[in-house]
Amino acid sequence: MKLLWILAHPKPASLNGSLRREGIRALREHHHEVVESDLYAMSWKATVDQADFPAVDAGPSAIGDAQERAYRMGGLSADIRAEHEKIAWADTLVFHFPLWWFGPPAILKGWLDRVLVQGFAFGVEDEHGRTRRYGDGGLAGKRAMVITSVGARRTSFGPRGIHGHVNDILFPLHHGTFWYTGMAALPPFVVYGADRFTETDFTACADALRERVLGLDSDRPLPFRHERGGDYDDDLVLRSDIAPGTTGIAAHYRALARNRP
Amino acid sequence: MKLLWILAHPKPASLNGSLRREGIRALREHHHEVVESDLYAMSWKATVDQADFPAVDAGPSAIGDAQERAYRMGGLSADIRAEHEKIAWADTLVFHFPLWWFGPPAILKGWLDRVLVQGFAFGVEDEHGRTRRYGDGGLAGKRAMVITSVGARRTSFGPRGIHGHVNDILFPLHHGTFWYTGMAALPPFVVYGADRFTETDFTACADALRERVLGLDSDRPLPFRHERGGDYDDDLVLRSDIAPGTTGIAAHYRALARNRP
Repeated sequence: MKLLWILAHPKPASLNGSLRREGIRALREHHHEVVESDLYAMSWKATVDQADFPAVDAGPSAIGDAQERAYRMGGLSADIRAEHEKIAWADTLVFHFPLWWFGPPAILKGWLDRVLVQGFAFGVEDEHGRTRRYGDGGLAGKRAMVITSVGARRTSFGPRGIHGHVNDILFPLHHGTFWYTGMAALPPFVVYGADRFTETDFTACADALRERVLGLDSDRPLPFRHERGGDYDDDLVLRSDIAPGTTGIAAHYRALARNRP
Repeated sequence: MKLLWILAHPKPASLNGSLRREGIRALREHHHEVVESDLYAMSWKATVDQADFPAVDAGPSAIGDAQERAYRMGGLSADIRAEHEKIAWADTLVFHFPLWWFGPPAILKGWLDRVLVQGFAFGVEDEHGRTRRYGDGGLAGKRAMVITSVGARRTSFGPRGIHGHVNDILFPLHHGTFWYTGMAALPPFVVYGADRFTETDFTACADALRERVLGLDSDRPLPFRHERGGDYDDDLVLRSDIAPGTTGIAAHYRALARNRP
């Protein structure tokens, strides 16, 4: 595999920093190639602004249009172009972060906002002029996985846990970002109880992580529906004969039994 | 009302910039007080780092602990302390942003990450030493609403729309942030088809927004369950006799008929 490992944690000596080291070491020992984007170490700029597309006058147009125009003329800032090269090279992307406010830290959200621009990751058309989305897109053929840590215990992120099921919380990433741009979303690797980790917990967790990352090329992705697979109508609503009566996030999984951690 | 209006859009002349102007004007004409945090205009720093708590050596401790220690000693950076004063003053918070990758732009995510610190917004205890969460917390008694814009049409964010129901997409904000810290989450104001807005669309949308914001003090919040209301067991899992068979986000609404836009 050729992996791009994107880490969003301020402290190398943290639990996540240590897990990253273990995961990457295992991959390299097995002759996989790993390139990193350690966002804090890179002092990654989080906020989309005019400096991202210096040669384009955004003017009254939408931000997404300005990003696309800059992308097409090679005029995005150098830090963004460097990430595009890494993504183009990789077959597998790992997004590794502590869950803050039930989502990625701002520095990683800013990586998504600034790097996954229109014309590159999405907003690309097929030979019939139709926009490629959800199971297809600029990043089609790649695979992506979340590694995240939470302080709470596992039960509280289960199907009826108070925080919401972890796959529902991650739906904006899994479905709205990975799958939207064409990447297969692999089941997340979630570290529970991270605030109370013991040495024994760490050993077991690192073992599990090594096993997971070495199997990323054969892992079964979350079974989301293709936009062009015939399940959605022209208004992008699930056809009434598909999963009748089901609403919400569950409706967008092909199999009724969603991958539950 | 005393409102804090938090805007995350880079361009004042945008659709969102114009809607903000209309909403705030209507509120002031009706003698409500409005304070703003215009994050782009403020050059708001998005990323949590050591500069947020200069007097605290985060060392090996969790970021949240470092934030709390700094908060308790009055040692958070001045930009964060200024936001705390605005929040303490306000009874209503408006979060206004374009939906990017199915969540808030990084600059707003960074406002959540940096401002809503442990000890202030959450991680506060009641008189029995129990942590106040979900319907209670450091921001209890306040109300919060999302105003957001999407390029897509309304149907695609409906109960069976391909993007997921908009209230499910916003669950990390509504439930995991507003309700978690004690704030009542009001139904969101969502602008659909924002990429194709006409003058007529804008007039109708601005009218609707003015009506909504003037009614924020009497709007019915999304009916989430209280953590201490008896519906969850000691593992923070919904009791088996409550909404039996329901899993996922829907389980955390008291009423089966969720507020649907």
